[in-house]
Amino acid sequence: MDRKGQGQPITSWTIHMIFRDFLGIRAGLIKALTDYEKFHQQCDPQKPYMCLYGCPNETWELKEPPDGPHELPEPNIGVNFARDGMPEKDWLAHVAIHSDAWLYSYAFYIAIRAGLDAETR
Amino acid sequence: MDRKGQGQPITSWTIHMIFRDFLGIRAGLIKALTDYEKFHQQCDPQKPYMCLYGCPNETWELKEPPDGPHELPEPNIGVNFARDGMPEKDWLAHVAIHSDAWLYSYAFYIAIRAGLDAETR
Repeated sequence: MDRKGQGQPITSWTIHMIFRDFLGIRAGLIKALTDYEKFHQQCDPQKPYMCLYGCPNETWELKEPPDGPHELPEPNIGVNFARDGMPEKDWLAHVAIHSDAWLYSYAFYIAIRAGLDAETR
Repeated sequence: MDRKGQGQPITSWTIHMIFRDFLGIRAGLIKALTDYEKFHQQCDPQKPYMCLYGCPNETWELKEPPDGPHELPEPNIGVNFARDGMPEKDWLAHVAIHSDAWLYSYAFYIAIRAGLDAETR
């Protein structure tokens, strides 16, 4: 279930690998929100509940969350569902804030799993 | 949908309110993990997928996540499901790490919604 970075399970990632991963995902999320037309279009409220994922290679993906329990922290569910129910700017802010919160939990999760502590930081 | 603190929506919380909320939830989560027998017993793998919530009043709750989209970042789903599938110590660590990651995303989410920035911090 572990994500692999350069062939290694996350438990052995260094702080540099985590930071590079973080920056890639962050760039991907920003692209989704600035690549507005494509993102808006994909967020069809008629589809099942979807999540916005940033990817380490600076891309983004809109897809359904995994069924049942999962190893990594998951993004907010149903960004597509909320699209037409609020003003466009508020919806974008909603997605941006949840993406930010997800990115923090994701990076902290990996950092703890990798055994990084205050001293390493 | 907003959680209320002292009668106020989270968008108007001060940094002190957020921090007090954070400390209460954190204490609740620690109680769940140290109040081990009760927590272990409630995490019945036969039940539906459940989440561990820390509460601002320093208690904890094990319950199913909300159906569909939700306002606040949600904890990892299915802590009960994993209980009997791994060594006890690993399972506790799994729950602790996910709880920690959730608490970060939760606190950051509220802080951003409340309009706090680096200067306020």
